[in-house]
This record gives sequence, structure tokens and C-alpha cells, in this order.
Amino acid sequence: MDFYSFIKKDKSCKARRGVIHTAHGDIQAPFFMPVGTKATVKTLSQEDLREMGSEIELSNTYHLFLRPGLDIIGKAGGLHKFMSWERAILTDSGGYQVFSLTDWRKLSDEGVEFQSHLDGLKHFLTPERVMDIQAVFGSDMVMPLDECSPYPCEREPAAEAVRRTTMWARRTKEHFLKTGMDKKGQRLFSIVQGSSYRDLREQSARELIALDTDGYAIGGVSVGEPVKEMFEVLSWVVDMLPQDKPRYFMGIGMPDQIVKAVGMGIDMFDTVIPTRYGRYGTCFTDRGTVVIRNGQFKEDFGPLDPECDCVACKNYSRAYIRHLFNAGEVLGLRLAAYHNVRYYVKLMRRIREAIEQDGYDDFQKAFFLKYGSEFTTS
Amino acid sequence: MDFYSFIKKDKSCKARRGVIHTAHGDIQAPFFMPVGTKATVKTLSQEDLREMGSEIELSNTYHLFLRPGLDIIGKAGGLHKFMSWERAILTDSGGYQVFSLTDWRKLSDEGVEFQSHLDGLKHFLTPERVMDIQAVFGSDMVMPLDECSPYPCEREPAAEAVRRTTMWARRTKEHFLKTGMDKKGQRLFSIVQGSSYRDLREQSARELIALDTDGYAIGGVSVGEPVKEMFEVLSWVVDMLPQDKPRYFMGIGMPDQIVKAVGMGIDMFDTVIPTRYGRYGTCFTDRGTVVIRNGQFKEDFGPLDPECDCVACKNYSRAYIRHLFNAGEVLGLRLAAYHNVRYYVKLMRRIREAIEQDGYDDFQKAFFLKYGSEFTTS
Repeated sequence: MDFYSFIKKDKSCKARRGVIHTAHGDIQAPFFMPVGTKATVKTLSQEDLREMGSEIELSNTYHLFLRPGLDIIGKAGGLHKFMSWERAILTDSGGYQVFSLTDWRKLSDEGVEFQSHLDGLKHFLTPERVMDIQAVFGSDMVMPLDECSPYPCEREPAAEAVRRTTMWARRTKEHFLKTGMDKKGQRLFSIVQGSSYRDLREQSARELIALDTDGYAIGGVSVGEPVKEMFEVLSWVVDMLPQDKPRYFMGIGMPDQIVKAVGMGIDMFDTVIPTRYGRYGTCFTDRGTVVIRNGQFKEDFGPLDPECDCVACKNYSRAYIRHLFNAGEVLGLRLAAYHNVRYYVKLMRRIREAIEQDGYDDFQKAFFLKYGSEFTTS
Repeated sequence: MDFYSFIKKDKSCKARRGVIHTAHGDIQAPFFMPVGTKATVKTLSQEDLREMGSEIELSNTYHLFLRPGLDIIGKAGGLHKFMSWERAILTDSGGYQVFSLTDWRKLSDEGVEFQSHLDGLKHFLTPERVMDIQAVFGSDMVMPLDECSPYPCEREPAAEAVRRTTMWARRTKEHFLKTGMDKKGQRLFSIVQGSSYRDLREQSARELIALDTDGYAIGGVSVGEPVKEMFEVLSWVVDMLPQDKPRYFMGIGMPDQIVKAVGMGIDMFDTVIPTRYGRYGTCFTDRGTVVIRNGQFKEDFGPLDPECDCVACKNYSRAYIRHLFNAGEVLGLRLAAYHNVRYYVKLMRRIREAIEQDGYDDFQKAFFLKYGSEFTTS
């Protein structure tokens, strides 16, 4: 069976409906991947994720490579067994964390040497090593080592990052095939770089498309650039990408950003926003965010989000959840994170339904209006 | 209907089987009350407590009085509604916390003035005020303001504490009846004090029995005294207490202490041990504790407790839970606390079944042996 089945394009815009097939079940696209950095989506359990209908989770190679380490995950029989998650898993390459979390790193064409942010020990990651790690994880979707340009970035280092990213992607695919990862049902993505330079972005996309990977990610976005610029980058690249492969907009975003990116043809999303915002007491609704610590909710015995049917909204009040946050109680973080992740998962289902009915353009217009978004669908 | 229905005494020892009837459901006794100090059992949800079969939870008047405050709980319609827990609730009087948590307090026969440990503001609690607070809470079982002696305690202040505790209990009952709390289905306990002085303990019990409250608690235990002494105090008092009323051994204890106290005729328990130990990674099993952070569990892919069928034990491994603790992830605390509270709740069910079969003496002997307890049933 193909990895990605394209079902249909919405007649009113570029939004796509598809399905990804993995050894750990199908994932209806477009979809959101809750982020379980250290093999756990912060404050939530795997039962919670199943209950809210998530068909996939994402974990971070960098963090798991350092702790608990490859040895333990290997002995557990892979990441699915280690964390008791029998549905699909995508793991990133660790490249982004090496560039954003470490104090010291040394980059060469061979790979990247870095000091662990945990204990200062030095490690060396190469494109091949990153594949070997994800082979042990047994991730359904694997990402190659890439060089993520910071923002802003001069043209010369951005071009150099594209060159290295393509070269590494080639070595990655060769190693991926040579070691038989494809035969074990794993699927390889590649990552378009090029900072905010249109020709570099297009060059990166062309080179990776020629390499024919199973899916395509747009990386080096949401790294500090204005939102408008981020969507400009997306607009340059997204139409170049093959119709018959999934498209992943990495690390995006706020609910209205996801809605917008789907309308431009994106299938896959991941972001820590729902869990991170939840831990600080900010909850998502169609009418924008609810900052639950605010005094206005002191005696508000209504639900967090009146339009939501999750356990946090059905069973608890704003006043109670506010009290939990004020008292420093874990259940507060848990309920807020539960609602937020569930909000994202359910938003994707609503998005898919709108596309099925060729009503996505209306859906996003109505969404932006109610959410108070800066976007329009012009 | 009576508050407490005595079902039977075990033929092999003094263990009792009974049922408590409340406006929020029956509670099969002997039972354990998970402690939700601030209207939440730390890291767990009310759904978790229902799922594990707890028929009651305990909350702390002192903490809830200070935050969120009486006003908000009153406007919510009481504590059950505020925290979304439709089963039974027992609230303590706040007395113990006033004596253990505050830096400054002034005790008189009228009541106790204290400074909040949160903001230093002064408050005044009297026996009557403590009832009024718990009337607003709507707790199914309410505790009177008492004076809890520290350990060790000279005879004179211990005698004074007994005098004041009895006087306050009388004023409490009068106010409880006058304000019609009994008519709203609330039930009043009294608390036996007297430190480690047998005659004072007996005097306290006699005076409170004459007052005829709905249930009897033994307080001023587990305050730093040796375990042997704690059970000596229990042995002096427990047989004096009426057969047709529930008996509550306050703030006790480790699993083997609960098993022992049931064998001496106790019906009710509360302790933060399962949640507190859980948060530090210590898990209870019939074979004693498992300290999950220990290196020996690094590659142990078996369950936390092989004899347990809770979600933490069925779905996750020791190696994974250890990883969560090492990585500082909330799910670790949550799984350990879930297992521990469920272990206590299930232990009480096993205790009740043993009593029903007149096999409690054998049960506790076998339990102490397997647990490696210091106790014997001599």
C-alpha cells in the first residue's frame, strides 16, 4: 500500500484530504501531532491521547538519545513499546535541538559535534547515525539531519545550509535504503530549508523532490520571523511539492495558523503550543484564548470552553481550574493541557470534515472571524 | 437510615465490617479516604478516583478556607459542586493545620487566632465558625475544632488540651444541631485527645462518648511518636468506643499500619502517604516499597507492581516510569500516585473481603510476612 493516499482537494481552495498508512495504523490527514518530547506529552498519559482521538504522536530524537538513551529504548523493543503507544510515531532528527539547545557545537560536512545540555558530554551526529537511531526507535516516520538556519540569516550561510541539507538528505536516503529501514515500514521525509530567500527555498525544494523521499517537510520556519513572512515562505514552496506525498509544516502553530496553512495545502502539523500554553493556564477556544488565572474567572462556574465536550470542559468549572492554578496543583495543568490538545485534535477533524464537503474556504473565513484572527482568506 | 450500619465482626479478631450511609452514597467500611487537601488529590483527577473505586475523599478546611475562600465555594453550591465530586466528602476542622502550618497563633477557650501561611493575614476560628464553614462546604462528615497536642507533651498541657477539646466538642454539637446541619444530612465526629497519657485518653473518650456524636476519631496520633506508642494509644481507647458508630484513626498510615489498626477495630483512615510517596517515586506493593528512581529498574520492563491491575501497572513499565521521574515529567508522578492510591483503595477491599470470610487474622499475618512488616498479630 502507498504511504499516502490522496483522497481529494477541496473545490474552494487548495486544502487536501488524505490518509497516511503506517505499520501502527492509519492517520487521517490533515492532522496534528501532539509533541511528546521526552516520550510523554507533558502532563498527559497515553490513555488521554487515545481517548481524545489522536492517531499519532511526535517525539524528539535529541532528547531521547541523551535520556534514557538508545540502549534502553532498544532493549524495550523500540519507542512504541518503551512508551506504550501502539499508534503511529514521528521522530525528528535532533538537528533543530542541536542548534537551539546546546551551548557548543561544531558543524562540518561530516556531521555535527555537540555538548549535551544535560551533562556537557560530547556527542557526534551524522546523517547516517541519525537514521540508525531512528531505526532503533522504530518510528513510523523519520526525519533526516538538516541544517536549520536561524532568523535572520545572511544569504551566504543560508545557501550553505541548503547545500549541506541536500547533501545530507542524499546520504540519509542512501543509508535508509541500505540498512533496510523502508522494508521495516519506516518512511523518510526530507526538509526544505533556505531561510527567507525565495530562490534558495525553491532550489532546496527542487533538489529534495529529485531525491524522491516519502514525504516533505518545510523547516526553518517559526524561528522568530514575522508570521507574514512565514506564510510567504510557505507560498513559495508548497505548490512545488508532489501531490501524492504528505506535506509537513514543521513546528506550526497557533490554531488560526494551522487553519490557514491547511488552506494552502499542508497536511501535517506539530507544535508544543497546546501543552505549553496549557501549563501556563492559557486555553484555546474558537473565540480565542482564555487566560484562566485571570480574576474575571474567580466566580465563573461555567466550562473552560462552552463549545467543547472534553472531560475538562464537561466535568470542571473555570473557577475550579483557576483555583488549581493558583494553588499550584498539577490537576490544573493537566486539565488545561488536556483541553488544549483535544482542541487541536478536534480542530483537525472539523478541518477534514469541511474539506470533505468542499466547504473549507467558508470554514476558514468563519474561523478567522470568530477567532479574531489577523488572517483573511483573500 | 442510620449513619453507620454495623454488618459483622470478624470471628478471628476485632476487625469490623460496616457501611456508612451519606447523602452522597454509601461507603463500605473499613475504608481509606484519599486526601485532597486543596480540593484535589495531588496529580489525580476526580475521574481517576472514581475509576479506582474510591467512594469518598477528604479535604482540608484550613486550606480551602484560605483559598479559594468560603465565598467562592459557597457560590459554587458547596464543595461537591466546586470540585465536581458527587461522592462523599469528609472535611477536617483545620485545627491540626493551624497548629502545624502557621508561624503565629493565639489559643484561648474562645478559639484560635492565627496568621495565614499564605499571606500573613490574621483569622479567628472558633468551634462554631468551623461548623459554619463546613456547613457551607456541605461536607458529609464534619470534624470539630480540637486541640491537638504535639509530641512529646507534658502532662499539664495534654490535660488542658483534653479539657478544651471536650468543651469545644460540646459547643460544636450544640451549634451543629442549632443550625440544622444534621437535618441537611451532615454527620458530626468528635476527636479523642490526651497525648500519650492513658488516663487522659480514657477521660477524653468517656467525655466525648457521653456527648454522643455520630462518629469517633482518635487524633493527636502520628505526630512524631514511635509506632509502638501510637498503637498503644489506640489499644487504650478503641474498645471503649461504641460498636454502632464509625471509628476513625486520623492521619494513619503505612499499609501495614492500616492492616494492623483494622484488626484492632478501626473503620476509617486518611493519609497523604500514597500521594506524597508517589510524588517522590516510592510505590507500594504487598512486598514492600519499590523506589522507582533506583538504577536497578533502568532496564526493568516489567510492571511497577506485578500483582496490580491498575492502568499504571497494566500499561507502563518500571523503566519507562523511572525515565519519567529522571526527566522530571509530570506523568511519572501521576502514574506513581495513581498506583499508590489505587493500591490503598484496593487494599481496603481485600481487607473487607477477608473480614466477610472471618479470615482477617490469617489475612493480616500473611500480609505482615509478605510486606516485611515489623508487626505480628500476637
